[in-house]
Amino acid sequence: MILRMDKLLIDLPEPKAPSPNSAAAVQELMGGRFGEISTLMNYTFQSFNFRGRDKMRPFYDLVANIATEEYGHIELVAYTINLLLSGSTKRGTDPSDTPLRSSVDARNSYHFIASGQTALPIDSMGTPWNGSYVFSSGNLKLDLLHNFFLECGARANKIRVYEMVDDPVARERVGYLLVRGGVHIVAYAKALQKLTGVDVGKLLPIPDISNKQFPEARKHEEKGLHRILYRYSPDDYKEIVQIWNGTHPEDGSELQVQDGPPEGFTPPNLPEDPQLTAPLGPDFDQELFQDVAKKLFS
Amino acid sequence: MILRMDKLLIDLPEPKAPSPNSAAAVQELMGGRFGEISTLMNYTFQSFNFRGRDKMRPFYDLVANIATEEYGHIELVAYTINLLLSGSTKRGTDPSDTPLRSSVDARNSYHFIASGQTALPIDSMGTPWNGSYVFSSGNLKLDLLHNFFLECGARANKIRVYEMVDDPVARERVGYLLVRGGVHIVAYAKALQKLTGVDVGKLLPIPDISNKQFPEARKHEEKGLHRILYRYSPDDYKEIVQIWNGTHPEDGSELQVQDGPPEGFTPPNLPEDPQLTAPLGPDFDQELFQDVAKKLFS
Amino acid sequence: MILRMDKLLIDLPEPKAPSPNSAAAVQELMGGRFGEISTLMNYTFQSFNFRGRDKMRPFYDLVANIATEEYGHIELVAYTINLLLSGSTKRGTDPSDTPLRSSVDARNSYHFIASGQTALPIDSMGTPWNGSYVFSSGNLKLDLLHNFFLECGARANKIRVYEMVDDPVARERVGYLLVRGGVHIVAYAKALQKLTGVDVGKLLPIPDISNKQFPEARKHEEKGLHRILYRYSPDDYKEIVQIWNGTHPEDGSELQVQDGPPEGFTPPNLPEDPQLTAPLGPDFDQELFQDVAKKLFS
Amino acid sequence: MILRMDKLLIDLPEPKAPSPNSAAAVQELMGGRFGEISTLMNYTFQSFNFRGRDKMRPFYDLVANIATEEYGHIELVAYTINLLLSGSTKRGTDPSDTPLRSSVDARNSYHFIASGQTALPIDSMGTPWNGSYVFSSGNLKLDLLHNFFLECGARANKIRVYEMVDDPVARERVGYLLVRGGVHIVAYAKALQKLTGVDVGKLLPIPDISNKQFPEARKHEEKGLHRILYRYSPDDYKEIVQIWNGTHPEDGSELQVQDGPPEGFTPPNLPEDPQLTAPLGPDFDQELFQDVAKKLFS
Amino acid sequence: MILRMDKLLIDLPEPKAPSPNSAAAVQELMGGRFGEISTLMNYTFQSFNFRGRDKMRPFYDLVANIATEEYGHIELVAYTINLLLSGSTKRGTDPSDTPLRSSVDARNSYHFIASGQTALPIDSMGTPWNGSYVFSSGNLKLDLLHNFFLECGARANKIRVYEMVDDPVARERVGYLLVRGGVHIVAYAKALQKLTGVDVGKLLPIPDISNKQFPEARKHEEKGLHRILYRYSPDDYKEIVQIWNGTHPEDGSELQVQDGPPEGFTPPNLPEDPQLTAPLGPDFDQELFQDVAKKLFS
Amino acid sequence: MILRMDKLLIDLPEPKAPSPNSAAAVQELMGGRFGEISTLMNYTFQSFNFRGRDKMRPFYDLVANIATEEYGHIELVAYTINLLLSGSTKRGTDPSDTPLRSSVDARNSYHFIASGQTALPIDSMGTPWNGSYVFSSGNLKLDLLHNFFLECGARANKIRVYEMVDDPVARERVGYLLVRGGVHIVAYAKALQKLTGVDVGKLLPIPDISNKQFPEARKHEEKGLHRILYRYSPDDYKEIVQIWNGTHPEDGSELQVQDGPPEGFTPPNLPEDPQLTAPLGPDFDQELFQDVAKKLFS
Repeated sequence: MILRMDKLLIDLPEPKAPSPNSAAAVQELMGGRFGEISTLMNYTFQSFNFRGRDKMRPFYDLVANIATEEYGHIELVAYTINLLLSGSTKRGTDPSDTPLRSSVDARNSYHFIASGQTALPIDSMGTPWNGSYVFSSGNLKLDLLHNFFLECGARANKIRVYEMVDDPVARERVGYLLVRGGVHIVAYAKALQKLTGVDVGKLLPIPDISNKQFPEARKHEEKGLHRILYRYSPDDYKEIVQIWNGTHPEDGSELQVQDGPPEGFTPPNLPEDPQLTAPLGPDFDQELFQDVAKKLFS
Repeated sequence: MILRMDKLLIDLPEPKAPSPNSAAAVQELMGGRFGEISTLMNYTFQSFNFRGRDKMRPFYDLVANIATEEYGHIELVAYTINLLLSGSTKRGTDPSDTPLRSSVDARNSYHFIASGQTALPIDSMGTPWNGSYVFSSGNLKLDLLHNFFLECGARANKIRVYEMVDDPVARERVGYLLVRGGVHIVAYAKALQKLTGVDVGKLLPIPDISNKQFPEARKHEEKGLHRILYRYSPDDYKEIVQIWNGTHPEDGSELQVQDGPPEGFTPPNLPEDPQLTAPLGPDFDQELFQDVAKKLFS
Repeated sequence: MILRMDKLLIDLPEPKAPSPNSAAAVQELMGGRFGEISTLMNYTFQSFNFRGRDKMRPFYDLVANIATEEYGHIELVAYTINLLLSGSTKRGTDPSDTPLRSSVDARNSYHFIASGQTALPIDSMGTPWNGSYVFSSGNLKLDLLHNFFLECGARANKIRVYEMVDDPVARERVGYLLVRGGVHIVAYAKALQKLTGVDVGKLLPIPDISNKQFPEARKHEEKGLHRILYRYSPDDYKEIVQIWNGTHPEDGSELQVQDGPPEGFTPPNLPEDPQLTAPLGPDFDQELFQDVAKKLFS
Repeated sequence: MILRMDKLLIDLPEPKAPSPNSAAAVQELMGGRFGEISTLMNYTFQSFNFRGRDKMRPFYDLVANIATEEYGHIELVAYTINLLLSGSTKRGTDPSDTPLRSSVDARNSYHFIASGQTALPIDSMGTPWNGSYVFSSGNLKLDLLHNFFLECGARANKIRVYEMVDDPVARERVGYLLVRGGVHIVAYAKALQKLTGVDVGKLLPIPDISNKQFPEARKHEEKGLHRILYRYSPDDYKEIVQIWNGTHPEDGSELQVQDGPPEGFTPPNLPEDPQLTAPLGPDFDQELFQDVAKKLFS
Repeated sequence: MILRMDKLLIDLPEPKAPSPNSAAAVQELMGGRFGEISTLMNYTFQSFNFRGRDKMRPFYDLVANIATEEYGHIELVAYTINLLLSGSTKRGTDPSDTPLRSSVDARNSYHFIASGQTALPIDSMGTPWNGSYVFSSGNLKLDLLHNFFLECGARANKIRVYEMVDDPVARERVGYLLVRGGVHIVAYAKALQKLTGVDVGKLLPIPDISNKQFPEARKHEEKGLHRILYRYSPDDYKEIVQIWNGTHPEDGSELQVQDGPPEGFTPPNLPEDPQLTAPLGPDFDQELFQDVAKKLFS
Repeated sequence: MILRMDKLLIDLPEPKAPSPNSAAAVQELMGGRFGEISTLMNYTFQSFNFRGRDKMRPFYDLVANIATEEYGHIELVAYTINLLLSGSTKRGTDPSDTPLRSSVDARNSYHFIASGQTALPIDSMGTPWNGSYVFSSGNLKLDLLHNFFLECGARANKIRVYEMVDDPVARERVGYLLVRGGVHIVAYAKALQKLTGVDVGKLLPIPDISNKQFPEARKHEEKGLHRILYRYSPDDYKEIVQIWNGTHPEDGSELQVQDGPPEGFTPPNLPEDPQLTAPLGPDFDQELFQDVAKKLFS
């Protein structure tokens, strides 16, 4: 069971300019094999499927807790895409002046036909995310190794999308995700180390470029965000502290668990796009709705 | 952002007997086009993508809040599958006596090769769930109509899986989901009615067989569970009360919003399956782990 | 069994200019989840699979008859795509002057490599249509609800493609399909109403923008095309008149069944494209063919 | 444009006994790469896409006309599947006695969950038919070669399904399709011969087993059905006679074109299956329906 | 460029008895995400795509050389499947006595319809292998980590298939592949260690069950097969010796490179199956063939 | 078993200029339904699966030997793609100046996110190659007919990609592949002729445009490359000479078998792309690596 808060992990300014092809690229971080739906679903299923959790509780708690943070990440990526798409076509109620004309050359036509210029569970080529991306073998060492690899692959993708998209606001979000994804990389490295004694963290960074090279990531690391594992639960997953402790393998800073999520920010109100009939079209019966609303909403 | 609690919506007894083919059938309710991942992801994306939410807040709140409950539903389906699979092969550490022999004839081989006899995001034929199942057009009326149809389709699937699987415990879970899915059907019917004045609820039940015909659903309805919409958030989604009000279209009972989730129950501890090396194999270095654990977990 | 006539539903002028990316967008109306192959195949399978048709004959007849019209719709969409693609590359027989050069930047490369610059059963991103788009539950109420939703979703897609593509001829075709698709929406609304008494037609239009807003659709509605259900059979499907009667929910005009299809127009002769070897390449053995033809075609 | 008749190509007796796994096997002939949807869709798209048809009219007519017959073939396969599935579960209105119990071990669970024990556009493993199976290159020689190969591949599949399924009625249908598919093989061989002078028919039979070895095919060949090409159009496709002439490559009999389709037979009325709520469930409001019907159907 | 030898890596006895469902399970090791096509294609593409190979030659040589051995592994798995399928249906030339009857209940119907009871590039549920299983990021550390994970995942699958299939001959092959796959695991661990200094080999075995527990693997290890890296090239890939050196992480034995492949064994001659027309059907024109052969093969 | 040589079939100059969209188009020749992976995998599986090879040895040898050459073809296509992509983005180590900016509009984003600007097993729209493209029926005549068709379809694709991409170097490679693919077309035509007596070669060229029309193909044909079948094996596949003999159907030249592969050329060393961290990133620990290397590589 989960509770949801109408909050985003960071505050989102508007992009400089709408950019459908940038939005298309960012979709890789949503619905690609290494996108946030993959991390969310991998850890969620591994937590449901964890055998022998009474004996291996700290590991169960870690996987379940990281799964929970990932939800906030798909949310962030979705809003990034939505902000990059909003306003990319001419607003208005007359369909006959071809308001979506510019979109005919955009790389991702689903954004303009299937969705209301908003995010979908697809990757940068429009391929839908699918469940074969979930790995849940039941063997703890193998699942942790997978998760470590998955996070490193996800990091490589984030870096490349960052290098493709120059909108400073889009980079802001990727910068944050590099840091928080970095926490998950270290967490799985620590878990493997607890299980086997091998100092897997010494392999980092993978790929071999530090988060410090990314101004929008560096600023969060300077505030210590890479050292904190949030515990995303009112009462559970407390044994993560058994794994998330000691020092960070890249800069030697002290790791710490923080009870509860970060504060959060109100998500932006996406503007109406009447040419998309989103949320309503020009022939919506305002009058009837007022009557109905008066009767029913009061 | 979400918080997660280590609780299930209902208490789960053990199945009468392991039944891999029953588990395979139940997978349709997980990863099928009309499975719980579909409802979770449809409403989640629609909530991220909702345009003009300032004006249409009750609808936004409704979709976001139902999305949140769906997480608890995929969890329930996962545990149902896990319990039906656990114990279906011979436990032990010797691979050479063919401990998984019986599984060679099971319908779903992924349960035995890819996962540790646990749930996957696939349907009853092993086809992975995929993102093309998500509908998010941005037009509110169309999205609500979709959701109403999706829930009715999901109900049809639940009914048929119920009729296929005779394990009383499995039926227990489907019974509960029929009731809670029924709440979502009514919620979307109400939302369409608020928007248009058409009494869509009169179409129910779809398919035309009442939940009262299912003993395991009826008992929950007798306690009034079909009248309650839980608000799954500490502070948000309060305007659902603008839509979830009045009477139930099937039995005329009074609808009510309950703040906060139901109480919840501790999920079962899935037993170790050493023949699957889940979570550990016979050659796991216990001694090293103890040393490491002593040093690192203290 | 069917009979086929070498006719199109409307007369097709040539597009202003070839436009591969417009053709790519129009593919969504062919092979997308809500494209014409989906409507054709959904109703066709539902008609094959209809149980208890002796008791529910008007519904069977309606579904089977609408399925039949859909064939004419995939045909129209195919020719629209073909006309938008024809002439988009340099005609000639010398491959070494890169006659297809411009196509290297076109969104849909299958049009240039797999097909002879003609339509394929794919959507606007090149994803093939697939059979999971067919819904055929056997429950009449649920199947009708699905069809009603499918047609509304198809309408939303048509509207958006109309808004993307400014070629007046392409818009001509979408205009016609908006009207005829509108007939199917109303037909399924009527069928649901006959079955349940709920006036589903009052939900229309979905999305909430009237066909009257589209000049190329309005002109057909002014001629009453939105009031007519053609009976596409020499002798069968006569009971559609039990459902298609009364008044149109949007403008109150009288509904009527017309026996037999509309008149139809000769399809355009697509020009030869020798650089594609379509239908023949420069080294086709004309002489041999003449000999063979003389001997065999006489 | 097409017209549809409520007739099947042959008369269909009931199967000896329901057999879900036989039905699953027959699905290959429906939605497999070499199934009837493939032949229907390949020739249909090739006919839409045919370039230079003014010059090559007999070839255009041939492809378009064969496409038309294929519709009758998917219909036949659908009814075969439907008859093999009907009655395979316990009929009744009480869901709580597990009426679908036996289906939990059936190979194709979609037949029991997604459809009302009826056909779907999928293959023998449940994989949906998809548009990548359509080949339409625009080069006439290549498209004809493809069609010749496709028909031979389809024949191989029919032979093997015939050898798997012993229900005499199912074999009856495959027998008929072997003969009619055989006509299409010869037709494409003839077309290649007209174009190139190469006597492709001498390659037959492919695979190298004659239709005469199948009693249910032989009886149709004895009546000469393998020599006739039906012209499935009121007024068009008349130039097929330019290709379908001369002698049959396997037995030297005279080929002939018959104007119009074969007589046809009324399709069976599939029985109601109340446990599937197909077409109605036990809680269908008969009384309301009578009222509504009285008011609306009169 | 490659050269091929008509040899298998080990000698293959016949299975005890045909077992289609065992063959279906073994398909996972062929076309599953972790099957041999995946290892072959991953390393092959990584070798084509290797940037900066002049500086990192030993790593390039290692990846290219292991890719080459994988070809021998898909071959072994194919023959295992073929031997398990051969003879599973009644041999003969009369199709009308339902020679494939038993196969109607087999899990994998493609083996009986699409192929001649032989291997296909699919997994244990019939899902085709696909190119999204290939990972080739260009970053050496990440690609090596991927390969290490891929091999561990492949090992987990092999173990489970071994535990499912009791045919001693099938186990023989899996036993061999466990050993040779184990060499690849160690090779990638060594490569990571050379690059980073981290002793990744200490994580082994993953899953935590030793090859020594499998009699059919143990016997090869006792002969030292787990210590040898074959160099599969007449003249290239000589720098693998820079990485494959030192001691084996599990038993401390000395690693060694052997120039050239193992000796190899003649592959079995798969018997004719006339009921499948494989390779020829009963109506193959023997006489004509003899004439043709006489004229053409001499 | 195979041996691999670090050689390419032809010498590869650098392209005039990087061209990501040209690379995207060339991917069709790699991972499309008619791409080189398809030919490689079709013939490879057919050779593993060949029944009755003792009797039909020349055919077995032919299929196995052509399969072997195909490996060299996927290699050539991979390097073509790699050369077209290399240098298409700004080289450097600073991620914050958006070095991949230009790629945001490229058709194939996987080249920039998933791979290090190198080839993937996908087609020109990014769709992964998949195993359903493999045909292996077991019937020799049908498999040969398939292969003949497959090669003709592959030829059509090569021709169109040649006509799209004007980089002379890319055309060089396609020119070579047209010739060598042409050899395979003739080889399968010859094999069919040996089996049936039908002179299938007279159908050529398909499509009806001769290789002589392509300057980059013509020059190889002038050297006689279209007459030679290389025997790609140290000791096996010698009976190909039974099929590859007589004269070429298009120009009547004498066919000949050459023992052993062509000479081959060293593949290009793909340059490092530090902005892609390929093969290493800016924070790769050179010092540690030197230490490790010193200790371990010596």
